[in-house]
Amino acid sequence: RVDVVTLGETMAMLRAPGIGLLRHAASLDVSTGGAETNLAIGLSRLGHRVAWIGRVGADEFGALICRTLAAEGVDCRAVEDPGAPTGLMIKSRRTEAVTRVNYYRRGSAGSRLCPRDVDPDLVTRSRLLYVSGITPALSADAREAVRYAIDVARAAGVPVCLSLNYRAALWGPEAFRAELTELVARADLVFAGEGEARLVVGGDTAEDVGRSLAALGPGQVLVTRGELGAVAVVEGEALVARAYPVRAVDPVGAGDAFAAGYLSGLLDGESVVDCLDRASLAGAFAVTVPGDWEGLPSRADLALLSAEDAVLR
Amino acid sequence: RVDVVTLGETMAMLRAPGIGLLRHAASLDVSTGGAETNLAIGLSRLGHRVAWIGRVGADEFGALICRTLAAEGVDCRAVEDPGAPTGLMIKSRRTEAVTRVNYYRRGSAGSRLCPRDVDPDLVTRSRLLYVSGITPALSADAREAVRYAIDVARAAGVPVCLSLNYRAALWGPEAFRAELTELVARADLVFAGEGEARLVVGGDTAEDVGRSLAALGPGQVLVTRGELGAVAVVEGEALVARAYPVRAVDPVGAGDAFAAGYLSGLLDGESVVDCLDRASLAGAFAVTVPGDWEGLPSRADLALLSAEDAVLR
Amino acid sequence: RVDVVTLGETMAMLRAPGIGLLRHAASLDVSTGGAETNLAIGLSRLGHRVAWIGRVGADEFGALICRTLAAEGVDCRAVEDPGAPTGLMIKSRRTEAVTRVNYYRRGSAGSRLCPRDVDPDLVTRSRLLYVSGITPALSADAREAVRYAIDVARAAGVPVCLSLNYRAALWGPEAFRAELTELVARADLVFAGEGEARLVVGGDTAEDVGRSLAALGPGQVLVTRGELGAVAVVEGEALVARAYPVRAVDPVGAGDAFAAGYLSGLLDGESVVDCLDRASLAGAFAVTVPGDWEGLPSRADLALLSAEDAVLR
Amino acid sequence: RVDVVTLGETMAMLRAPGIGLLRHAASLDVSTGGAETNLAIGLSRLGHRVAWIGRVGADEFGALICRTLAAEGVDCRAVEDPGAPTGLMIKSRRTEAVTRVNYYRRGSAGSRLCPRDVDPDLVTRSRLLYVSGITPALSADAREAVRYAIDVARAAGVPVCLSLNYRAALWGPEAFRAELTELVARADLVFAGEGEARLVVGGDTAEDVGRSLAALGPGQVLVTRGELGAVAVVEGEALVARAYPVRAVDPVGAGDAFAAGYLSGLLDGESVVDCLDRASLAGAFAVTVPGDWEGLPSRADLALLSAEDAVLR
Amino acid sequence: RVDVVTLGETMAMLRAPGIGLLRHAASLDVSTGGAETNLAIGLSRLGHRVAWIGRVGADEFGALICRTLAAEGVDCRAVEDPGAPTGLMIKSRRTEAVTRVNYYRRGSAGSRLCPRDVDPDLVTRSRLLYVSGITPALSADAREAVRYAIDVARAAGVPVCLSLNYRAALWGPEAFRAELTELVARADLVFAGEGEARLVVGGDTAEDVGRSLAALGPGQVLVTRGELGAVAVVEGEALVARAYPVRAVDPVGAGDAFAAGYLSGLLDGESVVDCLDRASLAGAFAVTVPGDWEGLPSRADLALLSAEDAVLR
Amino acid sequence: RVDVVTLGETMAMLRAPGIGLLRHAASLDVSTGGAETNLAIGLSRLGHRVAWIGRVGADEFGALICRTLAAEGVDCRAVEDPGAPTGLMIKSRRTEAVTRVNYYRRGSAGSRLCPRDVDPDLVTRSRLLYVSGITPALSADAREAVRYAIDVARAAGVPVCLSLNYRAALWGPEAFRAELTELVARADLVFAGEGEARLVVGGDTAEDVGRSLAALGPGQVLVTRGELGAVAVVEGEALVARAYPVRAVDPVGAGDAFAAGYLSGLLDGESVVDCLDRASLAGAFAVTVPGDWEGLPSRADLALLSAEDAVLR
Ligand SMILES: Nc1ncnc2c1ncn2[C@@H]1O[C@H](COP(=O)(O)OP(=O)(O)O)[C@@H](O)[C@H]1O
Ligand SMILES: Nc1ncnc2c1ncn2[C@@H]1O[C@H](COP(=O)(O)OP(=O)(O)O)[C@@H](O)[C@H]1O
Ligand SMILES: Nc1ncnc2c1ncn2[C@@H]1O[C@H](COP(=O)(O)OP(=O)(O)O)[C@@H](O)[C@H]1O
Ligand SMILES: Nc1ncnc2c1ncn2[C@@H]1O[C@H](COP(=O)(O)OP(=O)(O)O)[C@@H](O)[C@H]1O
Ligand SMILES: Nc1ncnc2c1ncn2[C@@H]1O[C@H](COP(=O)(O)OP(=O)(O)O)[C@@H](O)[C@H]1O
Ligand SMILES: Nc1ncnc2c1ncn2[C@@H]1O[C@H](COP(=O)(O)OP(=O)(O)O)[C@@H](O)[C@H]1O
Repeated sequence: RVDVVTLGETMAMLRAPGIGLLRHAASLDVSTGGAETNLAIGLSRLGHRVAWIGRVGADEFGALICRTLAAEGVDCRAVEDPGAPTGLMIKSRRTEAVTRVNYYRRGSAGSRLCPRDVDPDLVTRSRLLYVSGITPALSADAREAVRYAIDVARAAGVPVCLSLNYRAALWGPEAFRAELTELVARADLVFAGEGEARLVVGGDTAEDVGRSLAALGPGQVLVTRGELGAVAVVEGEALVARAYPVRAVDPVGAGDAFAAGYLSGLLDGESVVDCLDRASLAGAFAVTVPGDWEGLPSRADLALLSAEDAVLR
Repeated sequence: RVDVVTLGETMAMLRAPGIGLLRHAASLDVSTGGAETNLAIGLSRLGHRVAWIGRVGADEFGALICRTLAAEGVDCRAVEDPGAPTGLMIKSRRTEAVTRVNYYRRGSAGSRLCPRDVDPDLVTRSRLLYVSGITPALSADAREAVRYAIDVARAAGVPVCLSLNYRAALWGPEAFRAELTELVARADLVFAGEGEARLVVGGDTAEDVGRSLAALGPGQVLVTRGELGAVAVVEGEALVARAYPVRAVDPVGAGDAFAAGYLSGLLDGESVVDCLDRASLAGAFAVTVPGDWEGLPSRADLALLSAEDAVLR
Repeated sequence: RVDVVTLGETMAMLRAPGIGLLRHAASLDVSTGGAETNLAIGLSRLGHRVAWIGRVGADEFGALICRTLAAEGVDCRAVEDPGAPTGLMIKSRRTEAVTRVNYYRRGSAGSRLCPRDVDPDLVTRSRLLYVSGITPALSADAREAVRYAIDVARAAGVPVCLSLNYRAALWGPEAFRAELTELVARADLVFAGEGEARLVVGGDTAEDVGRSLAALGPGQVLVTRGELGAVAVVEGEALVARAYPVRAVDPVGAGDAFAAGYLSGLLDGESVVDCLDRASLAGAFAVTVPGDWEGLPSRADLALLSAEDAVLR
Repeated sequence: RVDVVTLGETMAMLRAPGIGLLRHAASLDVSTGGAETNLAIGLSRLGHRVAWIGRVGADEFGALICRTLAAEGVDCRAVEDPGAPTGLMIKSRRTEAVTRVNYYRRGSAGSRLCPRDVDPDLVTRSRLLYVSGITPALSADAREAVRYAIDVARAAGVPVCLSLNYRAALWGPEAFRAELTELVARADLVFAGEGEARLVVGGDTAEDVGRSLAALGPGQVLVTRGELGAVAVVEGEALVARAYPVRAVDPVGAGDAFAAGYLSGLLDGESVVDCLDRASLAGAFAVTVPGDWEGLPSRADLALLSAEDAVLR
Repeated sequence: RVDVVTLGETMAMLRAPGIGLLRHAASLDVSTGGAETNLAIGLSRLGHRVAWIGRVGADEFGALICRTLAAEGVDCRAVEDPGAPTGLMIKSRRTEAVTRVNYYRRGSAGSRLCPRDVDPDLVTRSRLLYVSGITPALSADAREAVRYAIDVARAAGVPVCLSLNYRAALWGPEAFRAELTELVARADLVFAGEGEARLVVGGDTAEDVGRSLAALGPGQVLVTRGELGAVAVVEGEALVARAYPVRAVDPVGAGDAFAAGYLSGLLDGESVVDCLDRASLAGAFAVTVPGDWEGLPSRADLALLSAEDAVLR
Repeated sequence: RVDVVTLGETMAMLRAPGIGLLRHAASLDVSTGGAETNLAIGLSRLGHRVAWIGRVGADEFGALICRTLAAEGVDCRAVEDPGAPTGLMIKSRRTEAVTRVNYYRRGSAGSRLCPRDVDPDLVTRSRLLYVSGITPALSADAREAVRYAIDVARAAGVPVCLSLNYRAALWGPEAFRAELTELVARADLVFAGEGEARLVVGGDTAEDVGRSLAALGPGQVLVTRGELGAVAVVEGEALVARAYPVRAVDPVGAGDAFAAGYLSGLLDGESVVDCLDRASLAGAFAVTVPGDWEGLPSRADLALLSAEDAVLR
């Protein structure tokens, strides 16, 4: 029995090691990334059992994804699809402050995820289903896979968590709003960056935006704001969480980390305040290290951000 | 006025730095590659003026390709296509003896090459047109572009050079045979690896294969055989060229180098024997260095393979 | 149910990237190594289920070992021992032909393996037990663990495979001979390098040595001889296996790879000739790549050594 | 017809990758640098046509300079001088705040620039001539080359831009003052760091210094002050420009970038205020990336410094 | 005749090049470290003659330590101990703010230092003896070595300098307090971090702590507080020294650098204020560069921290 | 008292890490090199005391040279010359078989060596003086320094060893012949590559060449022939030494290593046959490792080339 089931696309990640134009990079560092597996790794590191459903190509990048997830203790339910390559992401930092991600995912194995790949028993026997707003944009099949997973979860009384995750490279704001409005309405818990949330609902402040999302249905809405922290709207009540002060070196993956921290608290039966704190800690850890998920904390790590000593011997 | 015009797809090249499974590579070296631009660079280094026609995406890899060609003195007639990304190649060495190349070129900018991209004046005013058997497999538009370029060249009396370059990832042997049979018939000079040539024609020995290709039309046929050297069938006469003995570290690009050396000799008005020698030298240089084109020789370099001193000071 | 159970010490591996004195290396590459897990990874890559029993420290190198084994599909039954650090190996190449390995394993977590760590059910339900002659030299507890595992296996009718693996840094030839003579007598299948075998038994030729070992009890003895190949003495009959011709870049791990190939054949019910061939193939793959286990072949890879094409696209 | 012609010495650049004493660096990164080509690249990236006149040795570093300039779209009018090597710069960061540059340029090919190398037609047909105060210090020939270029420009009514660029390794403050006083008097537009300007003229504030320089002749004077911004004195009127707040990782090249931005605005017919803004943007881009010119912005990049999103997908 | 004699353990240092979990590091940078040799290098760079007494293994890491000390001008009195390996340190940065050091020093050659290794003449003829609170925790022999050296020094009237240097991996706070209370009482000059000082004595403020230590005997006590600076209690008078504002990239070694700066001042006969300033400068240099000692300043460097120009040419 | 005194120029060495054109190298590895210090390091590693006299610049490369020599146990008598930079060498491998070295040594500190730098006492009290044919080509002062050292040695009865070391970048064959003919006549022992020897004397075979050199005066002449081995002409008798079969990765420095091995044997009072064997071993070690001197053997290493085991544990 797993705690959380998630599904989506994970890609190989190629990352320029320094700051500057990618064209000047003599080499690219190799890793992997994907919103749902970032979350899965985050939960696994915090001690929860997580299964990921997805497709990879019959190639070395597919093998890399599977071995990375196995290494991180995630139950990898990857279908090896010989008909398409594993998707790729290229990440570079144009300046200290601007990170750019380019994708090679059109027609990728990961985008061919379909309802058949989703094991309904796995979903039914889990404690949470986690989906992101990226998957419906990958292909008609992928959209069906998400919907099917949500149907199965709801039928079994398994709470549905949704992360908006707008990707401009995949679809426009209108298509996004249409699809996500529907999905939010069927979710129990929603994570959203403030900016992308405004593509779906209105609202002056982050709290307003959170309330507007909550009005669509979900009992818990988390609106994240980068180094400005986050706002939670839980059963009608709003709470503010401050970000931990750290020097950020890679902003990508903060939202996934935040979600992992929050859900970890939920699974442990913590209060909303404590869930938010664990979420903020996880988000802070994510940005302090290059890589989308490499910096995610274990339980023991959580105490480190407030460690007194700069050197542990 | 340029000496040679060529067209096709060039991609960013990501290369595992050591020997072994790609999944264990911590980083990939960045370069570029493409049969036609490998040839173009080879000719440019030998002092000829070459123009390349192709498409790149509006991204950093596209910029990398354009700046690399400019750096090598190739007249880069690249159309920047905002609608598709620059294609990618991933190269790794599973063992010392086996190199693997994976592609991300489906739907790439380069595969969207079309007749409109081909400047007929440029072709008409050149001394040679060079095309490869890869381009017709990229897309219907790309196939048309090749045919159009050949039409223009033939109409203007510009000799057509063709390299077979079978790519199993793009099409099957039947489709290849059908298309290439037609193209060979319209070419004046054909370069073919022995293996790929056998996909088009029969023949017991490499010479037989060369004669069979020549029987389809071209006055000059060059059949290459890696470290075994090459066979030329020129106006019905067969010549054998031995490979130079070198320690090969990257077999990719040898054929393009060989073609560059041969055409360089032709442009200089050398005898077939001398053309073959320059071709074999260039092929040997190509394999002695990692990278598809980085090892290509300048005129001054050509003498180095038989240098007496191991150390030049 | 697993196919093979093994136990022993696995360490972090730090490897000088080039040839020369370690003191001149500006950095060391990080990996892991251990005779038994090299074998386990070899079997897992060939499709078998393998469990490894061992101890690691509560440190990052311990985490690295566990995540590597999980990544390779090995069922990692590691006890995390907070009382001792994970062992270390330092590997360097003084010249092209001489590799040196230094150890930091005195008092390591791995050397504290004890009978309590061995799950008898796991052994009983497996098809083979694999132990090496390294473990008894690590500590009295570790020696007991090996003996206990053998007892359990023999009681359950599970065949016992033993690899001699003499380590001069751990004990002298006499202690080795005394202990291994006993262990060989209780094993069903023995792997031995020709040199280390001569520390235990006499014999003019490799075959003689094999027969002497077989005389101690085991029905199958495999004597390996590096690039000279191997000799098998199986139920009294001797067979010779030639090594595949490859360019070796790292000799370490060849014996483990050979054993993995051989046992894979056995588990598949192959003939001794075919087992030997798979063993030789695996041994050849191991040496063609830096790293003790990174070059180990999957089933699909096995065909690559005799691939005709130097470039697979 | 080019927009800007410039001339001077460009060298290979070897750069310690980290912070600390150069003696501890295991390797040095390779690039190129030179005040005038930094400017040329900056202008080229902003869409202008620029030609550079200079000398390089008949060596690999000379080839590197030529291919870099070609890659950046600069019309490289390099004379290959077989009689002297290409000059070298060694750059390292002793601490986060102190960068040191050492030179190997005594007797270099670049220092042998002479009036004969300057194509008067090229200058006459351009819209601006750009020279720096480095070149007159390289050799008597080089000084003559600068003077000749200025003569030609002035005769043709082409405005002359001058950057002071004091280099203590080449000459003392007195020689500098003598030469530069003369050159400033013959320039239409002058760029000067506040410190080096004070070697030529007096003045309490940066504005005073600018006015003193303007008093020598030039209609436009730009005094730059690093992260404190810049002051312009244009036709008697003073304007202040603030620096953009960025985290600087390499201060070298800021002045060249600033000049490129300013001249780009001029060539586009922008107002002084807009020229200054483009200059400040370009200066900020230059310092945010290691390398003297690698961080220079394209037109599209200019908007990035004020981008709202930290991640562009 | 040397100025300072010191003794203790120095180890090879393996350092993860980036920020993040060590398990994700593909390679580790190689250097050396040890409190006493950090100090020795610091003094040597400032122009003093220093001898170090210690043990290294008969291995490459031992050779590395000896060649590093020789390179830094330290008179290396290392006993090569064939019976044990050179100790190791593994340093990594979990986050920007937390550095972790793991040790492989149990039973190391360095921990086998014994009184016999200490040349009494060397101590007697020096101007200062420097010992740290690490050595007594290494082994009974090592503790005796420290005591013997102190005895010799005191008998000869050579002042004894002691650095507390608590290492939690070696012993608990009680054992530390017992041993160090005794050693402090026999020292003339004591360096202590505020935190570790509180393990030995009480006190509200850093000054109180310093006075409590001074009450045990030493005429000079220096209490360091990282970026908060330091407090000196010298012959009953307290002085405060502010830290220089720098961006710290590696906090390890600051205390050793501080001590080197202070003792350098003493040896030069400077005032306490000037000793403190040199100490603070040296401490600041140490943290601005990765590595425990690589950033230590020469005399010429000392002026650099207040350099006006960011670029020295 | 030292065993050997040598003098000459040592430079920083920048080396392209892979095979190919230097212009494609993203970084260069940093080391040092110089014929005389290569020899000095070789002798030091074999246990002899060696002093080196030379000049370095007041820069980081000078510091690197001094610390490298100190690290290798060479008594470094370097004059720090603030008036000129330390010389540089750039080494790259155009192909596997061709290494190119470019120099930045015109006007370098090292070339300013002069008689005043030579301490006559040091020479007088040594057992051997070693000079190379490079130094006289550096400058008139440097030539005088060599002559002066030889005068002092001869006057004191200290044998003079000379290595021809022709450097085409420094002078032509005529000047070389004139100068070296004179120097050979004043030497007791001469080392010469066969090719460079033929610039000075005639002879059909290597032995003939050796005899011709010997005819000029020296009692011992060693003619080296790379992988073909060497010929000794000692007091009129000729001996042939075969090279050890190794895979060469960097031919530079073999001659210096050979000389170190030979002189080491002489200093130990070995027979000519044994001197030649040690010389051939040292030469073989030198080429098996990148770097001019890094591969040089210690006494313990000498046995390794004939080690039976590929792996030492
Ligand atoms: N620079 C930062 N410093 C500290 N915490 C951060 C930083 N950036 C993000 N976080 C934490 O991570 C959470 C999610 O970050 P955000 O950037 O909103 O997510 P996303 O990756 O979806 O854009 C924030 O609410 C905050 O708690
Ligand atoms: N290992 C090698 N050694 C020397 N020359 C080679 C080697 N491989 C290829 N060449 C040269 O390059 C030519 C083309 O090589 P080939 O491998 O046939 O081309 P392709 O890259 O098209 O497969 C050969 O005819 C030969 O002259
Ligand atoms: N250089 C090599 N080339 C090809 N195969 C090798 C080579 N070295 C080892 N092998 C294969 O691996 C097997 C085991 O190698 P060996 O070196 O004897 O093991 P060990 O690692 O125990 O010393 C050999 O029998 C052979 O099949
Ligand atoms: N640290 C910085 N942050 C932002 N902008 C900077 C910084 N340093 C330089 N600049 C910009 O570049 C311009 C030129 O910089 P400056 O350092 O004066 O030039 P130089 O390289 O000639 O010393 C400044 O006027 C400013 O606009
Ligand atoms: N971040 C820093 N910035 C500037 N100076 C520092 C910094 N950290 C340490 N120092 C200097 O080094 C001294 C010793 O540092 P501290 O961290 O107390 O030593 P330790 O390495 O023993 O913990 C401080 O008193 C201060 O002068
Ligand atoms: N490839 C090689 N293999 C083995 N030994 C070599 C090799 N090259 C040089 N040596 C040894 O080094 C000696 C000197 O080499 P040589 O190349 O003649 O010197 P140089 O560096 O002066 O050109 C040779 O006589 C031989 O003993």
